[in-house]
Amino acid sequence: MAITVTANETRLWRDLMTMSRIGRLPGGGAARIALSDADRDGRSLFIHWCEEAGLAVSVDAIGNIFARREGTDPSLPAVLLGSHLDTQAPGGHFDGVLGVLGALEVIRALDDAGVKTRHPIVIVNWTDEEAVRYWPGMLGSSVFCGFMTLEQAYAVRGPDGTTVGAELSRIGFVGPRPAEFFQIHCHFELHIEQGTRLEEAGRTIGVVTHTNCTRFAAVEFRGENGQAATTPMRRRRNALAGAGRLIAVIERVGASEGEEGSASAVKIDVEPNNHVNLPNRALVWYIVNHPERAAFDRMVQMIESEARSIAAEQSLQVETVSEWRSDPLHFPSWTVGTLEEAASDLGLPAKRLHSIGAHDAMVVAKRAPTGMIFVPCLDGISHNEREYCSPEHAAAGASVLATAALRAAIPA
Amino acid sequence: MAITVTANETRLWRDLMTMSRIGRLPGGGAARIALSDADRDGRSLFIHWCEEAGLAVSVDAIGNIFARREGTDPSLPAVLLGSHLDTQAPGGHFDGVLGVLGALEVIRALDDAGVKTRHPIVIVNWTDEEAVRYWPGMLGSSVFCGFMTLEQAYAVRGPDGTTVGAELSRIGFVGPRPAEFFQIHCHFELHIEQGTRLEEAGRTIGVVTHTNCTRFAAVEFRGENGQAATTPMRRRRNALAGAGRLIAVIERVGASEGEEGSASAVKIDVEPNNHVNLPNRALVWYIVNHPERAAFDRMVQMIESEARSIAAEQSLQVETVSEWRSDPLHFPSWTVGTLEEAASDLGLPAKRLHSIGAHDAMVVAKRAPTGMIFVPCLDGISHNEREYCSPEHAAAGASVLATAALRAAIPA
Repeated sequence: MAITVTANETRLWRDLMTMSRIGRLPGGGAARIALSDADRDGRSLFIHWCEEAGLAVSVDAIGNIFARREGTDPSLPAVLLGSHLDTQAPGGHFDGVLGVLGALEVIRALDDAGVKTRHPIVIVNWTDEEAVRYWPGMLGSSVFCGFMTLEQAYAVRGPDGTTVGAELSRIGFVGPRPAEFFQIHCHFELHIEQGTRLEEAGRTIGVVTHTNCTRFAAVEFRGENGQAATTPMRRRRNALAGAGRLIAVIERVGASEGEEGSASAVKIDVEPNNHVNLPNRALVWYIVNHPERAAFDRMVQMIESEARSIAAEQSLQVETVSEWRSDPLHFPSWTVGTLEEAASDLGLPAKRLHSIGAHDAMVVAKRAPTGMIFVPCLDGISHNEREYCSPEHAAAGASVLATAALRAAIPA
Repeated sequence: MAITVTANETRLWRDLMTMSRIGRLPGGGAARIALSDADRDGRSLFIHWCEEAGLAVSVDAIGNIFARREGTDPSLPAVLLGSHLDTQAPGGHFDGVLGVLGALEVIRALDDAGVKTRHPIVIVNWTDEEAVRYWPGMLGSSVFCGFMTLEQAYAVRGPDGTTVGAELSRIGFVGPRPAEFFQIHCHFELHIEQGTRLEEAGRTIGVVTHTNCTRFAAVEFRGENGQAATTPMRRRRNALAGAGRLIAVIERVGASEGEEGSASAVKIDVEPNNHVNLPNRALVWYIVNHPERAAFDRMVQMIESEARSIAAEQSLQVETVSEWRSDPLHFPSWTVGTLEEAASDLGLPAKRLHSIGAHDAMVVAKRAPTGMIFVPCLDGISHNEREYCSPEHAAAGASVLATAALRAAIPA
């Protein structure tokens, strides 16, 4: 007979809704921007709940929070469960939060069942997954995994002029634990899908097999200032005009390689950005996604090539000044299999799918066996105050997480 | 025999270059944004020079500075000369500044010649012509002329959250004089052309006969936030994508009605403007200019109509949320004639032209007889650190200003 663990839907929902009050927005969503006062308060509440549950809490030097349930053999590497409590602005109550509070529910469900495990189980809340203020995101997991130094992370500066180091210190989350990788047995992250594939398939559980090709890039147009009324059109070198054309191109390219591809401009910074001066500089940030390498490369090349054409036609200079790329990554068959079996044993047959968005699990996957569980969110809406995951789906995800965690950690 | 007054080129240039040191930028330009510390320092220097020249200085409640040379009949209305000392950011050393320091040179040249006038002559430095931080511009002249209340002006808020009232008080320029219109005999403003018509015609002096049709407008696109990687393209309502298309349209429309028309987007504000969330809001500011009403109307209609089409195609809402319009205004034949005669008598035959940019003189013209003198600026470049007006051209403009002022103020 299969061993399963069932999450307490009422308890998990109560905690999600309590957390949703921190950084609450008038439109019903939340904004707990990483290292803000609201993020500090969300962290404090989470630590309070972990201590109530008898977990040993520690914080590392980049502010990642670890809460440990000891195993009967403390020398064994831990099963790591978690995600992030920071949100978009505006954001919802599930992106990231479900993976952290779902992991806490795993511990409580195991406690309720009186089950001990041989491996320790550790919950993690990663610092700054969302990159609202401090780019790049997945900052805490990247430092933990050794892909970014602590010094680099501390020096990251936001558009408000603050740095990660100063703000982390201000909110009191520079912990004594070294911000460095420790051996883990495996890592599971529960997350909302942020798409509609599960909804459309009528499934509750998705198990992620691999990830997309993803590119975040910033392209800078440089032109020249000029009086915006009197400068003749033939002499204008309006950096914003070049940026506008490229933004339109990017959205068109996003729809050019089928339903699975996407591309959008998301952010623009213009100088001097006032009412009467032609801008000399415009920096456009965009994202390109596609599951297939060839189609992805065509999209990126089309955008780069159009950027050069636009610049030439409008007497501007153009340069890609920042790029973050992620190549497709395949999760190991044993973590995928463990999650699929857990779902199946709970009577929730899983749909295999790939991850389109970037997640901390993709960072950790480069250092340790990792798997991801997706649950539906209404209409695929996310990074939005209307983001919604039903209590039933949230609990179903937590049950799969708990069942898989128990198998990986081995009942004692 | 014609009465003329000749400006002292060396003295005027020295003062222009001294003023250019306040708010100096590394690229050689200046930034004296209205009500900044640099604007305060520029004002203080100007007042110092006015007092040195024996003028009676007063400041009104919106910070306009008046410096009066008494007439032999103090009961007569003043001849008002001036412009603005605030600059773009980045800006140059002539736009506005030449009109204020050129007026000061008029006084000194009259003093040198030992000439008294029946009418008083008053120099004015208007507050916030440039609208870098506080929109709309020509703020001081608008309050003076009664087109905006003092309360409205004080309440104007900049993107940094500060208000005109608070910043004016902070720099110590809320003067005791009521910010209200007083009867003036006539007003002359000397300004760089900010275009290439004088250069191309090989003329030193332009006399402005009338102004353009001008529209500053802000169009807002509203869409919906969403995860910028995972939201399917068909469900995206990216406000920035709509804004990008419109920005491209505006630049195209700017070149559609001949060499004399223009249109450009100059400013964009996006929410939330971060790396991973589809923007729900984008506000695009643009300027349209044309000397002919019919062509101007076609340009405005094309932009408005394209904005609606783009919004419909991308499932966005669109609305024009702010508009500042200026209809063509014709300067009186006697002020135009006085300026032309002064130029002619100085051996500098004037070219008649219309003004494309907006100036304080256009505001004052609605209350009193007004005229404008243009001098060339190199390659028509303005609102730019490379903005340049030669010492010879600056002095020629000041000589025309002085000669016209003397005629209007009547030698005593």
